Amino acid sequence: MSSHHIVRDDQEPALIIANGQECSPELLGQLLEWSPLVIVLDSAIERVMQLDIKVDVLLGDFDHGFDPETYRDLQYPLEIVHTPDQDKTDLEKACDYLVERGFPAVNVVWATGKRADHTITNITNIVRFRDKLKIVVLDDHSKVFVLPPKFEKWYTAGTPISLIPVGKVSGIYSQNLMYELNNDELTIGYRTGSSNKVVKDGIVTIEHTAGDLLMMECFD
Amino acid sequence: MSSHHIVRDDQEPALIIANGQECSPELLGQLLEWSPLVIVLDSAIERVMQLDIKVDVLLGDFDHGFDPETYRDLQYPLEIVHTPDQDKTDLEKACDYLVERGFPAVNVVWATGKRADHTITNITNIVRFRDKLKIVVLDDHSKVFVLPPKFEKWYTAGTPISLIPVGKVSGIYSQNLMYELNNDELTIGYRTGSSNKVVKDGIVTIEHTAGDLLMMECFD
Repeated sequence: MSSHHIVRDDQEPALIIANGQECSPELLGQLLEWSPLVIVLDSAIERVMQLDIKVDVLLGDFDHGFDPETYRDLQYPLEIVHTPDQDKTDLEKACDYLVERGFPAVNVVWATGKRADHTITNITNIVRFRDKLKIVVLDDHSKVFVLPPKFEKWYTAGTPISLIPVGKVSGIYSQNLMYELNNDELTIGYRTGSSNKVVKDGIVTIEHTAGDLLMMECFD
Repeated sequence: MSSHHIVRDDQEPALIIANGQECSPELLGQLLEWSPLVIVLDSAIERVMQLDIKVDVLLGDFDHGFDPETYRDLQYPLEIVHTPDQDKTDLEKACDYLVERGFPAVNVVWATGKRADHTITNITNIVRFRDKLKIVVLDDHSKVFVLPPKFEKWYTAGTPISLIPVGKVSGIYSQNLMYELNNDELTIGYRTGSSNKVVKDGIVTIEHTAGDLLMMECFD
C-alpha cells in the first residue's frame, strides 16, 4: 500500500478521489504522498482498490445496490460515511465533511472527464466553498481553483492561464498576461478569459472586485 | 474514405471536429453518415487524417508553426479558412462560418475532455448562438444542447437528465422529472439541476422564462 500515512498533519490538504475519469498514476502518487486523509467517493472505490491505495474514508449515497461494508476489512481502519442527501453531489458532501473536521484545504482528482454534467458541476460548485475550504481540482491537463480578490503567484513565461467566470465577475485587473484585463467584466457563456498566457517570468497579479472567478492552469 | 458525401442537403446538421479528446469511432461514424459538411479545427486534422475521413473545411488560427497547405492535396477539394481573431475560440469561429453559409444546425465532437478550460468554454459558449444555430455537443458520455423557452421530447423512464444554467435561469417548470421544478431558479456554481431523471416513458416538458439553460443527456 502507498505510504501516504507518513505525514499526518491536518494542515496538509486532504485528497478526494471522485468518480470521473482516472488521472495518471504519477499525479495520483504525488498527491497521495503528502495527503493526511484520503476520501473516496462511492463506487469509485472499486477502481481505487486496484491501485493498492490506503483509503481513510468512503463516502457516498451508496445507491444502485453498492455495499460499502465489503471494503471495511479490506481497508481497515475505514470510516464509512453514508450521505443520502439528494440535493448535494457526493463531492460537495465530502467537502462538507472536511470543513466539519477542520481541514483547511483539499486536492480533488477524478472529478472531470467522462460525463460533461459531472465535470461542469464539479468544477463550478467549488465556488460555494470559497471561504471555507481551499479546493484544487486536478487532472492530467488541468489545475483549477477559486481566485481570492487579489491573487499573486510566480509563473514562467508562456504558461497558459484561463480565467473562467462562474456567472458574472467584474472589476478584473491583471498584470503580466498577454491579453491584459483592465477593469474588465467576464460572463460565462458570453465573455470568458480562456487561453491567456503569462508574458514574462515573474509574478502574475489578478484582482477582481465581485463574483466568482476560477483560475485554470491547463496544458495540452 | 467514409461516405458522408452521399447526402448533400444543407438542412442536415454539419459536423465540427474540434481539438479535444477523441470520441468513439462508432459515434463519429454515425454523425458522419448524415453530415453534408465536415469542418475540422486546426491541428486536429493531424488526428483526423489517421481516421480516413473526407474533410471539407479546415479552419483555425494555424499558429504554432502548423501549415494547413500540407492537407490541401490530401483532402482535395479542401477549403482552408484562416481565422486569426484571438477574441474567439476556433469553435466559435467555425459556428460563425456555418451561420454565414446558412446552415441551421451542427453537431460538435472532440470538444470536451483533456483541458478543463476548453471543455467548460466550449460547452457554455454555445448559448451565444441560441437564435442562430442549433448546436449539439456530443461525446461518449454526453449530449449537450441549449433549451428553447419550451422544450418537449419523449424519453424512456430512468433516462438521466441534467439541467445546467449558464449564469442564472429563472421561471423553470418541468413535467415528468424525478426532482420536479416548479417556478425554480438555478444558478451556476450554487444551484444546478444536475443528475435528475425521467419518471415514466413519455414526454418530458421543461420550460423557463429567462436565462440560458443547457440540457445534458449524460450516461456512465
